Amino acid sequence: MGSNTYGKVFSVTSFGESHGRCVGVVVDGCPAGLRLDSEDFRETMSRRIPPDPELRSSRVEPDEVELLSGVFEGRTTGAPICALVWNKDVDSQPYEEFRFKPRPGHADYTAWRRYGGYNDYRGGGRFSGRVTLSHLIAGVIALKLLERVGVEVVAYTAEIGGIKAGEMPLEEIKSKVRLSPVSCPDPKASKLMEEYVKKVRSMGDSLGGVVKAVALNVPAGLGEPIFESLESKISSIMYSIPGVKGVEFGAGFLSARMKGSENNDPFTVEKGRIVNLTNNSGGILGGISTGMPIEVSVAFKPPSSIRVKQRTVNLLKMEDASVVVKGRHDPCIVPKAVPVVESSLAIALCDILMEAGLIPRVLDG
Amino acid sequence: MGSNTYGKVFSVTSFGESHGRCVGVVVDGCPAGLRLDSEDFRETMSRRIPPDPELRSSRVEPDEVELLSGVFEGRTTGAPICALVWNKDVDSQPYEEFRFKPRPGHADYTAWRRYGGYNDYRGGGRFSGRVTLSHLIAGVIALKLLERVGVEVVAYTAEIGGIKAGEMPLEEIKSKVRLSPVSCPDPKASKLMEEYVKKVRSMGDSLGGVVKAVALNVPAGLGEPIFESLESKISSIMYSIPGVKGVEFGAGFLSARMKGSENNDPFTVEKGRIVNLTNNSGGILGGISTGMPIEVSVAFKPPSSIRVKQRTVNLLKMEDASVVVKGRHDPCIVPKAVPVVESSLAIALCDILMEAGLIPRVLDG
Amino acid sequence: MGSNTYGKVFSVTSFGESHGRCVGVVVDGCPAGLRLDSEDFRETMSRRIPPDPELRSSRVEPDEVELLSGVFEGRTTGAPICALVWNKDVDSQPYEEFRFKPRPGHADYTAWRRYGGYNDYRGGGRFSGRVTLSHLIAGVIALKLLERVGVEVVAYTAEIGGIKAGEMPLEEIKSKVRLSPVSCPDPKASKLMEEYVKKVRSMGDSLGGVVKAVALNVPAGLGEPIFESLESKISSIMYSIPGVKGVEFGAGFLSARMKGSENNDPFTVEKGRIVNLTNNSGGILGGISTGMPIEVSVAFKPPSSIRVKQRTVNLLKMEDASVVVKGRHDPCIVPKAVPVVESSLAIALCDILMEAGLIPRVLDG
Amino acid sequence: MGSNTYGKVFSVTSFGESHGRCVGVVVDGCPAGLRLDSEDFRETMSRRIPPDPELRSSRVEPDEVELLSGVFEGRTTGAPICALVWNKDVDSQPYEEFRFKPRPGHADYTAWRRYGGYNDYRGGGRFSGRVTLSHLIAGVIALKLLERVGVEVVAYTAEIGGIKAGEMPLEEIKSKVRLSPVSCPDPKASKLMEEYVKKVRSMGDSLGGVVKAVALNVPAGLGEPIFESLESKISSIMYSIPGVKGVEFGAGFLSARMKGSENNDPFTVEKGRIVNLTNNSGGILGGISTGMPIEVSVAFKPPSSIRVKQRTVNLLKMEDASVVVKGRHDPCIVPKAVPVVESSLAIALCDILMEAGLIPRVLDG
Repeated sequence: MGSNTYGKVFSVTSFGESHGRCVGVVVDGCPAGLRLDSEDFRETMSRRIPPDPELRSSRVEPDEVELLSGVFEGRTTGAPICALVWNKDVDSQPYEEFRFKPRPGHADYTAWRRYGGYNDYRGGGRFSGRVTLSHLIAGVIALKLLERVGVEVVAYTAEIGGIKAGEMPLEEIKSKVRLSPVSCPDPKASKLMEEYVKKVRSMGDSLGGVVKAVALNVPAGLGEPIFESLESKISSIMYSIPGVKGVEFGAGFLSARMKGSENNDPFTVEKGRIVNLTNNSGGILGGISTGMPIEVSVAFKPPSSIRVKQRTVNLLKMEDASVVVKGRHDPCIVPKAVPVVESSLAIALCDILMEAGLIPRVLDG
Repeated sequence: MGSNTYGKVFSVTSFGESHGRCVGVVVDGCPAGLRLDSEDFRETMSRRIPPDPELRSSRVEPDEVELLSGVFEGRTTGAPICALVWNKDVDSQPYEEFRFKPRPGHADYTAWRRYGGYNDYRGGGRFSGRVTLSHLIAGVIALKLLERVGVEVVAYTAEIGGIKAGEMPLEEIKSKVRLSPVSCPDPKASKLMEEYVKKVRSMGDSLGGVVKAVALNVPAGLGEPIFESLESKISSIMYSIPGVKGVEFGAGFLSARMKGSENNDPFTVEKGRIVNLTNNSGGILGGISTGMPIEVSVAFKPPSSIRVKQRTVNLLKMEDASVVVKGRHDPCIVPKAVPVVESSLAIALCDILMEAGLIPRVLDG
Repeated sequence: MGSNTYGKVFSVTSFGESHGRCVGVVVDGCPAGLRLDSEDFRETMSRRIPPDPELRSSRVEPDEVELLSGVFEGRTTGAPICALVWNKDVDSQPYEEFRFKPRPGHADYTAWRRYGGYNDYRGGGRFSGRVTLSHLIAGVIALKLLERVGVEVVAYTAEIGGIKAGEMPLEEIKSKVRLSPVSCPDPKASKLMEEYVKKVRSMGDSLGGVVKAVALNVPAGLGEPIFESLESKISSIMYSIPGVKGVEFGAGFLSARMKGSENNDPFTVEKGRIVNLTNNSGGILGGISTGMPIEVSVAFKPPSSIRVKQRTVNLLKMEDASVVVKGRHDPCIVPKAVPVVESSLAIALCDILMEAGLIPRVLDG
Repeated sequence: MGSNTYGKVFSVTSFGESHGRCVGVVVDGCPAGLRLDSEDFRETMSRRIPPDPELRSSRVEPDEVELLSGVFEGRTTGAPICALVWNKDVDSQPYEEFRFKPRPGHADYTAWRRYGGYNDYRGGGRFSGRVTLSHLIAGVIALKLLERVGVEVVAYTAEIGGIKAGEMPLEEIKSKVRLSPVSCPDPKASKLMEEYVKKVRSMGDSLGGVVKAVALNVPAGLGEPIFESLESKISSIMYSIPGVKGVEFGAGFLSARMKGSENNDPFTVEKGRIVNLTNNSGGILGGISTGMPIEVSVAFKPPSSIRVKQRTVNLLKMEDASVVVKGRHDPCIVPKAVPVVESSLAIALCDILMEAGLIPRVLDG
């Protein structure tokens, strides 16, 4: 299968560029009978645009999702669903400079090497964060399918620029995450993150952070050891998101510093079900779900496009040069990335549940 | 493709269990003409057994690799290579207890849920670290292929139980890593790690750590954005290794705490080639290689099998229970995991290089 | 990968329905730098519409291909190419009847079983021959790539309603196939076929036939034994075309009636190259190309939609019923199928050549 | 996935060579809990050896299947099943001649081109019919799984050297096929075939033929339109069998000569179920099962190894030459191919049923 496709049974093929005509996706393998129309995508699309203009790029588009196939009389048909968003608010002028003077930290250089200079460099082309509209569109469908089997996914900003959200119960996270302009459910941390992003933005610089996603009610016994471990499948899609440089499950890198006696999650019987007293494993043992919440943390580097003068090269002259990145860029991608991480986890779980036969191929009602 | 297969062009299918007849692999897509015999595997196999008995499980086997197919007159034929190691030093008795009393932190419980109790539980069965013999065997072949195109891979212990190896030049790492009983090239850290492992072992407990792998001379322009990013493909195979809970590239989670101006790797021209002055990206931008060293860090949790009393459940009686794990277990899996991580990175790169047409399908000479 | 995707390296994902908004395709893995614009598709699209209205359905659309992604400044970028045709001349009214009264020989019934009645039944929906626009669009791109490496593909009508084209040299086939209204290069047979189709059409009935495709200059040594034999890969895509019920290579079923001494193709040296004196093998031995022309024959059943009264069932009442199919239908699909078979062979070969590294990933000039 | 793997969920990886150490298979995705031991393979293996020595090659081996993994306490575990047959009765001497003087009709030449001369040429190596032991082993497992859901598969010789079996009810076919030395259920045709094979054998020549396979009780609604049509998946595995040059479903090539009114299978309601009055479609419409028997016919060319003098070339001298094939060869492969075709259909159906969630992942009882 091509390199722009993810998934074995619930299969997602991404296409489109930042400043091309559109960004879209083909979702193949969706059961027939699921209610679906353009409205279903509206809220998720709006999550990409924080209301405060100081927290985001000035590129703002309505991003309405058009369904081109696979839906009939308000329901999915079982045929592949092609859905896309037309690009509207495009200003490609600032990108001329980076065509031959690659931005440090950006894919300008590697794209040029990979595609011999034929890539659509405008707005970062295929390497823009905007390409994750594919993930969001497919994610809306995946989340609707998961809802049918009681699985819930929630993501939030766990860290920006070193400022960490405090621990809190999942119910509280769910109720507060949408209230924060940076998608951080801890109000105090949210405020600090917000101020820090604005400050760093005013300096022309950028910040990274960590998004955490949790999936609830995933049945125990899903996944495989070795090459299709839950971690393999989930990390693989997380690393499809531009800017991701780290993925960990449960205690993750911290567990590398624990003793076995600290890290092992004891089992107990609770209301007739086997549960763990702690969840350092992130809900996965041996690549297979335990039935506890699946927890994944995703590290985003700071956006590479900054208004600070940086050393680079001139690709045509093969000599040193410098660049100051103008144009419309996010000072911190993390808040926008929250629904993308959520969608990605949903897509991965949907594929796994479908392969296990746990989502029926025809949905009634 | 089945869940025990990795790779699109250089394709690896793993089989076997810890206490079954064997552990093995089918390597499909290997070019014809590569010199290969059983001897080629000997050194790698021996790296799984640290000489000091206090640093490892007491299970010690010669682990000779038998080539069953795909090799003729000392060279690969282009046909699938089936290779395996027969299990010899097997003692399954201690595992009877865990069949229905799952070890906390181990896959005993999830395997039972996934396979309805039919899994081979002896020695952890398919969930044993021994299954990574598949990775090692395929890795030896991959490393030989990479050598033909000048790509080199080296892995080492970067951290055990919180003790970190100091920074050092890669040449020094390469020369010193094999001298350390814990595969840590920093002699001082190595000594501390060794002592700490022995101490924790004597307490019946275990330690985790971090393995770092570096690939040199990977050509720029390899990989894809989105679903087949280098990070997606590499993390996917890293998470096939039992006990891995975190994978990061370059500065990884640390880059989430940096500003763009700190994290971006400036470009410069050096001897007619474009290079970066730093390598926070771990040699990957936009999912594609930059030509700088590819750097990946892999976090291992502490082995779950410890001689400390732990809370668990009785699966048949559905009631709380306790377990003290006896049997032969590693106090720290990290040193053994070093060649496995090295092999895994080699396999991933080999698949990517072959798909890009950079390793010929027939090798002469 | 999803069930609507074909190909490992040159990968084609089909979407769309007959009476939905569009029919389209995502072509993933196309090298960067190939010149491509909407004009390139015009001639192929027009081959779907024989000028004589008695030889085809009365549904006639301009079928202009729109390129939505993957092309920039008149060249492919290496990113996935989404291309589609908007449906315009749609009349869904006649299909209401078949929703619950399936046409014998058509997929109405199986679609209803597969998708629980949620499939888009209008115009046959996903089961219409119109869906092969996906094959044609991808085929135009594949044929342009094959041209770059000197491989040529030509298809023609070999048989309609039992009337067979005479044997003739390939050069003559190439020069005459476009002159025939039924795409049959033998003028005498073409005339007979034409008359027979018109006659059977006037009776409200339909005819089947055989399309033959030949690929020239395919280098020897391409393909694999066993599961990815050339025949496996080619037959697999041929059977994706609606109405196909037989696929054979070279002498095919006839070779089952030959002796070895008759069927074996002797080798000889001709101008320093090894060739065969005959080509009963269809250019493939052991799943691998011999360097001789690759020859495949594809049997199409007669279209199921006929104006003759037929026995069927009422799906809601579960009782016997009858149906007379009205609407716009082809009396014989074979002439329209010729470019589809040609495209399909091109797609399969393109995928195989790319996997073998024989088409570069960046095309200049 | 590698080119020696078939199947998405029930996945089969073949390895081994004719005169190497073994021929084997890894079956991945088999549900846990299926009873399985070496005995289960004995009868199928014996079907490869017709008792009459005049009807077969003189190579006769016990071909006992060894289970190396994936089975524990007499049941499958859900882990990959590696199973193989050791090669015992090997005489490689006669093959020295063909190394550089390829047999017409054989893969000697294409293997030499594909693998640069490094292929194991002994006994045809990877291109021998013996490699279909992989299909047989996996087929035994697939047939046992199909039995659990009531699906039955039966194959038989429909034609040898132009002599055709008469039509007969399927129950009669099932009861008589094992009585015939050429696996032809029609006693009269069987006798004629037998005599013809012996006669042609005595002339040093060989014969082709047709194997037909039928699957009963396949539920309606299985499969997909377009690229994963039932025909695509089934033809793809049929063309993995050495010597196959044609595959057709139902009336196949004959339907290309029928009118729509003749070819369409009328529907009717019978005992509350929808059935067809005829089965020209071979149980498949639009790539999806109708619930009628699935019928596939597979054309085998005559074995290429004949004792008649033939024109060939000397690959080293690049000049014309001649060859008379000695060694142990079958005069007609068709009887031996019957269980291979049966197994292949079973494997394809098993994969499709598992993907549809119709075979549970854990089998009890």
